[in-house]
Parts: sequence; C-alpha cells; structure tokens
Amino acid sequence: MDRTLPATSHHDTAVPIGRRAASASTTATATVADAKHNAKEKGIMPSPTSVVANRGEHHRVAPLKLSEQPSQLHNHNHHSHQQHQQHHRSQATNHNYYYTQQQVFQGLHSQQHGSQAQETGWECPASEKSKRTINPVRPIIDSILKDIKMGYQRADGKDPISLAQCDPAASSALKPCNAALDAVARALRERHHSASYLNASGSPEARVAVAHHHSYHEHIIGADNIVIANGCSGALQLALDTLLDPGTTVLVPHPGFPLYQMIAESNGAKVIEYHLLQDRNWECDMDHLESIMASSTNVRAIIINNPSNPTGAVFSEYHLKQIVSFAAKHHLPIVSDEIYGEITFAPHKFHPMALVAAKMGRQVPVITASGISKQFLVPGWRVGWLAFHDNNYNSLQGIQDGVKRLAQIQLGASHLAQAAVPVLLSLATPGVAEWKKNVKETLEQQAIFFCDIISRCDGLEVIPPQGAMYVIVKVDCRQLGLSDDTEFARRLLEEENVFVLPGSAFGVPNVFRAVISSPGSVLETASLRIHDFCQRCCEQTERKRKKPRSAK
Amino acid sequence: MDRTLPATSHHDTAVPIGRRAASASTTATATVADAKHNAKEKGIMPSPTSVVANRGEHHRVAPLKLSEQPSQLHNHNHHSHQQHQQHHRSQATNHNYYYTQQQVFQGLHSQQHGSQAQETGWECPASEKSKRTINPVRPIIDSILKDIKMGYQRADGKDPISLAQCDPAASSALKPCNAALDAVARALRERHHSASYLNASGSPEARVAVAHHHSYHEHIIGADNIVIANGCSGALQLALDTLLDPGTTVLVPHPGFPLYQMIAESNGAKVIEYHLLQDRNWECDMDHLESIMASSTNVRAIIINNPSNPTGAVFSEYHLKQIVSFAAKHHLPIVSDEIYGEITFAPHKFHPMALVAAKMGRQVPVITASGISKQFLVPGWRVGWLAFHDNNYNSLQGIQDGVKRLAQIQLGASHLAQAAVPVLLSLATPGVAEWKKNVKETLEQQAIFFCDIISRCDGLEVIPPQGAMYVIVKVDCRQLGLSDDTEFARRLLEEENVFVLPGSAFGVPNVFRAVISSPGSVLETASLRIHDFCQRCCEQTERKRKKPRSAK
Repeated sequence: MDRTLPATSHHDTAVPIGRRAASASTTATATVADAKHNAKEKGIMPSPTSVVANRGEHHRVAPLKLSEQPSQLHNHNHHSHQQHQQHHRSQATNHNYYYTQQQVFQGLHSQQHGSQAQETGWECPASEKSKRTINPVRPIIDSILKDIKMGYQRADGKDPISLAQCDPAASSALKPCNAALDAVARALRERHHSASYLNASGSPEARVAVAHHHSYHEHIIGADNIVIANGCSGALQLALDTLLDPGTTVLVPHPGFPLYQMIAESNGAKVIEYHLLQDRNWECDMDHLESIMASSTNVRAIIINNPSNPTGAVFSEYHLKQIVSFAAKHHLPIVSDEIYGEITFAPHKFHPMALVAAKMGRQVPVITASGISKQFLVPGWRVGWLAFHDNNYNSLQGIQDGVKRLAQIQLGASHLAQAAVPVLLSLATPGVAEWKKNVKETLEQQAIFFCDIISRCDGLEVIPPQGAMYVIVKVDCRQLGLSDDTEFARRLLEEENVFVLPGSAFGVPNVFRAVISSPGSVLETASLRIHDFCQRCCEQTERKRKKPRSAK
Repeated sequence: MDRTLPATSHHDTAVPIGRRAASASTTATATVADAKHNAKEKGIMPSPTSVVANRGEHHRVAPLKLSEQPSQLHNHNHHSHQQHQQHHRSQATNHNYYYTQQQVFQGLHSQQHGSQAQETGWECPASEKSKRTINPVRPIIDSILKDIKMGYQRADGKDPISLAQCDPAASSALKPCNAALDAVARALRERHHSASYLNASGSPEARVAVAHHHSYHEHIIGADNIVIANGCSGALQLALDTLLDPGTTVLVPHPGFPLYQMIAESNGAKVIEYHLLQDRNWECDMDHLESIMASSTNVRAIIINNPSNPTGAVFSEYHLKQIVSFAAKHHLPIVSDEIYGEITFAPHKFHPMALVAAKMGRQVPVITASGISKQFLVPGWRVGWLAFHDNNYNSLQGIQDGVKRLAQIQLGASHLAQAAVPVLLSLATPGVAEWKKNVKETLEQQAIFFCDIISRCDGLEVIPPQGAMYVIVKVDCRQLGLSDDTEFARRLLEEENVFVLPGSAFGVPNVFRAVISSPGSVLETASLRIHDFCQRCCEQTERKRKKPRSAK
C-alpha cells in the first residue's frame, strides 16, 4: 500500500458519518473502547509518515456518500483520535524501528473479549475447533518461563538455563550439517526457480529421497507414497485430520508428546492414553492396550513414538513386533512418529515400524511421520513428511489420497528447506554420515555426563535414556521436602535459574524432564546447580526433622 | 535407520506365522493383492543394499514368538515375495538414484481403495473432513496439463507454454529481490540459531515488520496482532478454521480464488458466492450481497480479494467503502485477501481494506491476509500472515486468540524464509523500493503488450486488468466455431501448445484467464499463437458458413 498518501487524501473529504447523539451508555461504551484501544497501542510504533501527516491536525472520519448509509455506523472516534494524537506525539521522537520483544508482545495479550461486542451486535464467535485446540503444556511452560531471569537481574548473577524446550539448533554445541546449509545456499543462488511453487505434496526430488530413505527390501515405497509437510507437526496434522472424525478415538502414549492430543481434539476426536511402563524402559503396557480395546469403539489408529519424547526410550524390535501384533489383531493402522529416528545410544538400535510391519507380512498399514528437524538439527526450517507403507489390502489408499487433498490447502513446505532434503538423506553426500555420527555421539556423551551428575544428587534418580534428547529424572519429593514436581521446577528456577519441565506437564507426577542437547558446559553448570539445589533441600528437610516437634 | 542391516537379521529367524490354508477365496484375494502390490512398485527403486541381500534368497516372514499370537495374522506373501524378487532382479542393474518424474508419480495414483480391505476388516476410512476438502480447479488443470507436450514431442515443434498457473517465480523475466536472497543467505551463514524454532506465530522481527507494514495512523497495530503462517494459504486456513463452524457460511467472490471454498468446506461450512460484475470492472454486486443477507443466516464473514484473482480488478476506495458499509450493516467481519497488494497498474491504486475501515470509524473488524509470495515473487518460500485490525469493540479478540492456538500445531513458517520478511518490508532496505517499482512496471508492460495483441484476435475481447497478474479474455465461441471455453482451452493446447485456464474452472463461461508474469518473449509467442489459432478458427467457421447447407 501507499504509505506516503498525502494527508489530504483522507482529510479533503472528511465528514463524520451517521454520528449518533451520545447517550449515557454509548459514552461509557466509547470510553471503555478507547481505553482498550489505547492500551492496545502500547509497544507498537507509528508509521513515520503517518506521524508527520497527523501532527497538529484533527482527524475526522471519512465520508460515506452511499444510498444505503447504514444506521449502525457510529462514530466513537473523537476520544480515541485525540488519544491517538497524543500517542503519536509522544512517540514522534522515537526512531527505533524495532521495539524490544517485551514491548512488542505486551500489547493486547491480557485483554479479554468484552461484553461490548455482544451489546453492539458485533460478536465474532471463534469456532468450536479453535476452542478445542489447546496445547496443554504451553501455559505451564509459559508461566514458569516468564520467571526466568537474566543473570544481571538476579542478586546471585546466575544466568538462565532452560532444559525444558527441545530445540537442538539453539544449542551452540550442535550445528546443522554444512551440507544442509550449502544445499539451501545453492538453491538460493544457483537453482532455477528456487522461489517458485512446488507440488503441494513436496518437490519430486525431496519425495524420491524420502521414499528411498523409508524403503526396505521387505517393502519398497515410491515418491507417490510421500507427502512433505510444514514440519513433522504439519505432517501429523495432515495424518490425524484424515484419520479422525469427530467422535472417533486415537490411542496415544502416556506420557507422550502433547501434540497428538491437541490435533485429535482439534478435530473433535478424543484420545485414549495407553500407559508406558516406567519400570520396563517405558515400553507400551500391552495389557492396558488390550483392556482399552475391550472397552472402546471407533478407535481409528494407534500412535507410537519411537524414539520417544519425553521418555528417551527406544523400543526393541521384539516390542515393536508386539505392537504390530496388537495392531493386526484389532485392525488398527499405526501412526509411527519417528522424528528422533536414528538418535539412539548404544546398545540400543532404532527399528523402523514400517520395516517391522513389513517383516511380519504387511498386515498392518504404517504411516510414518518424520522430518529433518531433530535428526538434522533444523527444527525451524519446518520440513517434515508422511511415508505411507500400506498393507496388502491397500487399506491406506483412501487416507493417502485424503492427506494429499488436504495438503493442497497449504501447498507444502518451504522450497528453500526442501532443497536440503535430498542432500541430507543421500548416503552419498560427503560429510553427512560423519556429521550424523558425531551428533549422535555428542548427544550420547552429554546424556551420560548429565545422568552421571544427576544420579549423584540427593533425592533424584535418573532413568537412563536410550535415545532422543531427553532424560527423565525421578524426584523424591519427601526427601527433598517439596510438595510435588511443580514445586521442584518452580523452586529450582527461583533459586538456581534452571528450568526443567515438571512431569505434571505430561501427566507423570514426581519426575522432571531435562533436554540434553545443550552444550556440555551448560549442562555441567545446570547439573551442578541442580546438585546444589537438591543438597540444600535435603539439608533443610533434615534440619526440620531434627528439630523437636514443639518448635514447629 | 540402519540400511546396512545384515541380511541375517531377518532371515535367521524367518518362520511363517499363522499361515492359513488357502481357500478358493483367499487365493483369489491374494492374487489381487499381489497384482496391486506389484503395480505399486512400478517407478520406484529398491534400496541397493536390499537388492544384494535379497538376491537368490527366498524371502520369508519374520516370526512372532508372543503369548498372544493373533489369529488374524495371515500370510499372503508367498506370491508377492516371488514377484518382489523378480522385481528386484530386473531393477538390480538400474543404478539411477532418481527416476524420472513420470516414473515417480505413476505409482499408485490410479489405484482405487479395494473392497478387499472391507472383507478383511482392514478398512481405514478417510475422515469426512478430508473427503470434503477438494480443490475444484486441480482436476481441470491436471487433465489439460497432462496433454502439454514438449516441442520435440510434436510434429510442429512448438514448445509448451502455460499461462494457466500463476507462479511469478517460474518466470525468468522476474527474479526475486537480491535483498531477499541476501537475507536468507545471511541467516544461513551468520545468524545465530537460524535453524531453531521460532514462536508459533512467527519471529518477533518478522511480526514487528508486518505490523508496521499494516499500520496506518488511523489504526496502528502491534506484533501481537500478527500471525505468520505457512504461506498466505496457511494464513487463510488459520483464519477460516477459526471463523467458521460446521453449518455456518462465508461469503466469497464469484469468480474467485477457489481456496476459500476449499477451506470452508473442509470445515463443514458452506460458501455463498456473491457476484462480481464483469461490466463494472468486476466490482462486488452490492445488490446481490444484500439479497444474500436477506435470505441467509449464520454468515460469519465476507471474503474480499483485492487486487483480485482471477479478474485482475483493483477496487476503488469508494467501492471499498461500500463494502465496509455493507459489512457494518450486517455486522460481518471482513477477511481481506491482499496477497497481490501493491501490484496495480496506473491509474489504479491499492487501498488496504483495514485503512478504509479505520477511516470509517473502526466499526468493522478486518483480518488482512497477505504474504511475500506474489509481491516479492517467492511463492515457494511459503511465508504469509494474518494482520488483525480489530474494531472498537474488540470483536476479533476471540478470533485472534483462536488463530494463535491453532498456529501452535504447526509452529509457523520456515525460519529461513521468515528471515527475509523484515528486510523486504522495511522501506530502508536499499534496492527494495526500486526492485518493486521495476516488477510493477514490468508486469504492467507485459499486461499492456499481451492485451494489445489479444485485443486484435478475432473472436476475443480483453477485459483490461487493473492489477495483479491476470487478464480475463472473453471468447466469442460462436464466431470461433467452438462449443465453449473448455473446448477453446483444449484446442488451443492441441494446436498451439499454449495452456490457458478456461473460465469454467472458476465458474465463468466463455472467458479464459491468462497469467501475464511470463517473460515478454514467451508472452509474445503465446499471444501470436493465440492470434493464429483464433484466425484459423474464424476462417474455418466462415468456410463452413459459406458452404451450401446441402453439402453438410
């Protein structure tokens, strides 16, 4: 649009329209609206040209010379425009283009949808779908994260360390593969049409590479069985949007990645959580799964996450066979979320679900969800995919077609990021295999290192991870004198500026989850702080215990 | 996963499980399944290691030594595995990593979901949502596009020219702005954490830049009012997913961009098409809009597309005011799709809907959908956004919150592409303003050039575009001796290898739409071929007319 519109363009013809005599109620209304409106503008900047254009002029409302001048068009703007001007004047000297992130985000965030909209007939209801779509972890993380203080904000000078969010790319110890960066750079500079649209299901090159990546001699798939999406999350959304109708059910792991529930509920479907057994390396509780099926109808699929978030478990081939047998018995397609893929720690080995199902005779259709985010440390690039390994009866054909239809809405993932896929998945690309080995070893070393210190902390017990980027730690709240894992997380943050995800966030009390992708030095600091914190807690508890009861 | 699994890993323990005595019906079943399965593998390549591992060995099914060995696990695999082997052998000499696109895509595409799935209890129904999600234009384009022949495939040697798809980046005449390429390259190489996750609603920098871009002194918005999405399509999906419930209605332009209908129907909502008036520069038919509202309930929003696809119209400020008045009267929020934004041809000027609504007193809330795809010629990068210009009653608050919740599923657009947004939208970036001016002028010149030739074609009449990248051309089918616009498009393709979108694809008979973003030389060739084609058609018609009736 034209930012340099002359001031006259809207002043020449400026005549208020349909102004209503201000009744008591409308005046009150206007004031509330104006106040909100004014508040809304905090933390944002005026357009430089508009500041100049508006200076010293009284702004009025543009005319409406129409035969049907709707009576509902009121003018509530006199207050707000004066405030507007003050706002502009006060900011006219501020030439910063970018405001601080805090300023930027404080805006409307806390405002509520007023009753005024209702009174005026201006209610715009949000869809039930949008109301159902809730990330259960977000509020927990956000409420704790807002308390993380920079080192200089704290008396003890401790820098903030978050072990709560798994963003391997945010770690300076682990860098994306040069081959990936080169591929994107090459696409940018050399590749013909690197800015143009791709097929809605992905570029042919990326799909062929992904198909090859997920092909086994027991089951070979083609590019037609691949749909590239906006991240593995986007891929999971496509899959569940196509598998689930309102009122249907999908089986999800507990504890598990909350996105499954979020997408299912967004579709008006429900999840039934099957237990992962803590004392059996977080394997699926097959008895529980059977009992769920005995009492459930309309179950459309089972989601398996291997290697697993948040448990760090890697399923054995034997256990995967158990799962395939279960799925075969109940005619359930498997959605296998394998985003952590080959990130496993010796002696644990990753077995693709589709390969296991193929070896068992292709009875069970498998939709594999994966991507380059975690294994190649580029989560922000947003490239994920679905690979369809159908069974002998082409049971997935309708699902695959449906996913492709849905994919046509967004037209796939960014062309730039897709350019990296064939390079990263090709075994022939120089340096990739070595880089992968290095990342895996680094993560494993960091996991061992972190677990070693944590296992020596009073009141904590590590469940050693087998892969992925997570460690689950049991918290003996009684020994530490804490009420629960949330208090653990809150006080650890307050006292040590270290943030871990309390188990309550994913429904497992008295544990916390730590991400081990941060650099070794950060992990060292964090684990030593956790060590100090636990020691202090235990000593305090001990002191309290030693004191005579009367002293309480 | 491990591609170099030793061959023994699945052969050592290979014992068929639960093989069922082959009855007549199961044998038949297996044959059908095998045939389909075999067909499925056409056009895909085996993993090189698996080819070696499998050579000369009879493949068997892996065992299942479980207490609960489900009786449903049958072995249909003996036929298919033999075929498998043949397949592998025949392809073992083929070392091409990439197959041709045709080979890659022919795979399963034409297969139908068989009845076998039903018989075996292995039906996996696709959701109603996925069934409702249909791109109405796709089959029309695809069916014609498949006939486009390379020059060497044709007796006349004519190269294929498509004026049907609007992908400005596919044109070698128009290149993305260097500033955009540099920004991504810089992010790749220099920027800390350019591979890491961003806020689900977009990076702070991109959101501030977009907020600034859509701020007017009549209505300033902040980063909190911006949600970055996976392309403008992704943004529209977020908006409509949040505005529409099943059974509700949204008003969409006719002719218009089919995505609106696709998303609405995906949500179980319906669209009512309001007419754009061909003889009034494709303005909205306000009388028709009023009559729609008189007979409709549960209308949640009106979508305006300005500048418009497919009409190339740019609405005057006066007309936008009419629309705002209409929306005010009926309390309808406006979704303003402004993806073509400033691409207008003199003397036509783009007026942002939100600015018009603001000038008219902020009664009407406006959700602006836009992005960098078209204006900056990078549609494949997939960066779009929604900008919320709320009214005085905060009517959009619930919608904005809902959109942000939904955005948490996919976690936004690619970090790489978002890095270009602040650079492209800043007025201070060297070269951007000049580049934009140049693109606009080039498109305008190309539109003039194309219209000039087309207007001299027999039987065609151009409706001069005012902006965007489209020209609509009226086809006098009687004069040309053609039954309709689809025959025009089909025969033009057959005879001249030029593909234009027939009006029937967007519901307007006897017109076609041509995209004018191709390089001038291509447009010249295309328009001259169209000229020849029309001349030939007219001459043929003339000859037929002159012949005595008895001769027929």
